[in-house]
Amino acid sequence: MKFICMKQDLLEAVSTVQKAIMAKATLPILEGIYIEACDNIKIIGNSFDMGIEYTIMADVTEKGSVVLNSRIFGDIVRKLPDSEVFIQVSESMMVIIECENSYFEIKGLSSDGYPLLPEIEEEKKVTIMQASLRNMIGKTIYAISNDENRKILTGSLLTVSEGDLSMISLDGFRLAIAKTMVKEDVSFNAIIPGRNLNELHKILEQDEREVKITLSKNQALFEIEKCRILSKLIDGEYMNYKSFIPEKFETVIEVNVRELTEGIERASLITNDDKRYPVKIIINDEKMMITTSAEVGISREELEIKTDGNNMTIGFNPRYLLDSLKVIDDEKVVISFSSSIGPSVLKPIQGDNFIFMVLPVRMK
Amino acid sequence: MKFICMKQDLLEAVSTVQKAIMAKATLPILEGIYIEACDNIKIIGNSFDMGIEYTIMADVTEKGSVVLNSRIFGDIVRKLPDSEVFIQVSESMMVIIECENSYFEIKGLSSDGYPLLPEIEEEKKVTIMQASLRNMIGKTIYAISNDENRKILTGSLLTVSEGDLSMISLDGFRLAIAKTMVKEDVSFNAIIPGRNLNELHKILEQDEREVKITLSKNQALFEIEKCRILSKLIDGEYMNYKSFIPEKFETVIEVNVRELTEGIERASLITNDDKRYPVKIIINDEKMMITTSAEVGISREELEIKTDGNNMTIGFNPRYLLDSLKVIDDEKVVISFSSSIGPSVLKPIQGDNFIFMVLPVRMK
Repeated sequence: MKFICMKQDLLEAVSTVQKAIMAKATLPILEGIYIEACDNIKIIGNSFDMGIEYTIMADVTEKGSVVLNSRIFGDIVRKLPDSEVFIQVSESMMVIIECENSYFEIKGLSSDGYPLLPEIEEEKKVTIMQASLRNMIGKTIYAISNDENRKILTGSLLTVSEGDLSMISLDGFRLAIAKTMVKEDVSFNAIIPGRNLNELHKILEQDEREVKITLSKNQALFEIEKCRILSKLIDGEYMNYKSFIPEKFETVIEVNVRELTEGIERASLITNDDKRYPVKIIINDEKMMITTSAEVGISREELEIKTDGNNMTIGFNPRYLLDSLKVIDDEKVVISFSSSIGPSVLKPIQGDNFIFMVLPVRMK
Repeated sequence: MKFICMKQDLLEAVSTVQKAIMAKATLPILEGIYIEACDNIKIIGNSFDMGIEYTIMADVTEKGSVVLNSRIFGDIVRKLPDSEVFIQVSESMMVIIECENSYFEIKGLSSDGYPLLPEIEEEKKVTIMQASLRNMIGKTIYAISNDENRKILTGSLLTVSEGDLSMISLDGFRLAIAKTMVKEDVSFNAIIPGRNLNELHKILEQDEREVKITLSKNQALFEIEKCRILSKLIDGEYMNYKSFIPEKFETVIEVNVRELTEGIERASLITNDDKRYPVKIIINDEKMMITTSAEVGISREELEIKTDGNNMTIGFNPRYLLDSLKVIDDEKVVISFSSSIGPSVLKPIQGDNFIFMVLPVRMK
């Protein structure tokens, strides 16, 4: 194997595929990056849950493939001068890396047995803007559960039906839904692991280029220009989340997002994330009072709001409210309280592309 | 106690004095910030090693003093709106903090027994620019030892004599000296603990305002406008560092700092901070070769240099060389090698305000 490529291309490829590689694997080959020189260069990182393949342009003078330790190779590429990089594998599996006045020789591994990305049969496919998918993941990922005992909640439901693509996360205390339109007339349900969504979110760009999503029985493939990201799916039936969303509300308010966020942040300083002390929200006509009371003292905060419905007193875990508020870009949010013990729904003022739901805490 | 002050002033004072306070102290009062309202507001943080006093302007309507938990009070002040802050202590030692629509009531502690900063007798005093002292600390602090068994090396020597103020750190493997002129005709030696210098470095501003340094028998006081920082000194006689600096050199080179830094950084990727594998520097006329060899492979790097003296092969712990190179602002550095087993001296090309010395590693 022998080729010349640009450092920046190589760096982008290596940084991307590294997201799939586990730092500590059972076999050295699984801590490695697969490099294959053919017409161009194919670079792969793969773990059991996720595989990423990245293609870059190169001037290939000898075909071949090798596996290099991900950490060492990544560190070297990152520190190389911004110039042409020459890579060559000797017969003894030593890999020579040269760039301007820098020269490295590092031990390579045979690429035999490296888990390549399988071809996926194009069963069901949708195409959306990268920015759109990125945004949807960003707005729902916080509500994914960490509880490995309820495996299906450690991923987000990706569902397509009747021209809508939705992404849903819920963890038993809150629920986040993001929605967008797709042209394709297909329907599917897939539960994507949270960790993979997190890496996918970092790879997706905030621009109008497309990402193609292909579903097979137990895998989802995300394709972006030079990059293919394969995620395994979580087995099982997702919860019937629609049934959790209340339809009737006792009180509906409109409130400034920044003011509410800062008010809750200040109030939660007193409770210091101690779950015994929720923040109490008191809605009294066009005023909202946010109060906390803990061993160290008390806090009180007053906001002007628009109110429709009854006055209400309701308690929340401040962390849960803040997580939802953080992903709302609008200046104002509409909060609908079903009751002081039922779920509350947060929605941006315009459109219904995003819905966030939080369960209250019972107050003593 | 009752006063009104500006949030920004209060925040600056609290953030500064917090640097002296230990997160976990034996007594609650020592985890606290002392606040005293008189003509203006005096705010103090104190631990056994270091005390900081900060004075801010305020509209005081009732004199008095109180101690507040540093973490809680600091967090609250940080999150308050940028406006006027009203602070009042009730008879039951509850402290009311109000700012715009935010209201807090937190438990205060009696200020009885809080360790105030002692007045220092003006024994010996020098005055220099804040930026100057900041720069000197920044350039020498990396060479302070962490080894608590050699207590005096866990601080820097601050020494004034014959119109020169010098700061010296050494840890047995490297030595850093920074020097500046002072007007005062005094002479003293004081060893300031590294931790205190680190905090002082954060407090000093990169500007021309002055800092007054006053020495007493076992304390050093640094005074900057509204702020007094008192550091205890480390007992003992500092090492005779001057005797360590070689006077004769076998080889003297001039090399580009960025190129040398990047070359050593790349070389040390192969050794991954494993002390068994030093970087080897080979000086051959006007060329420097930097090489490493470890289990994972080898690296080689070539630089153009100016050389005066013999060719030389010498090994270094890359970390030690990088630490020195990092604090050199000049484009080029002069490195003088006494021999392949003796200390090497790094100096900026112009002036002799900074000297850095590194011991080599014996090569097999």
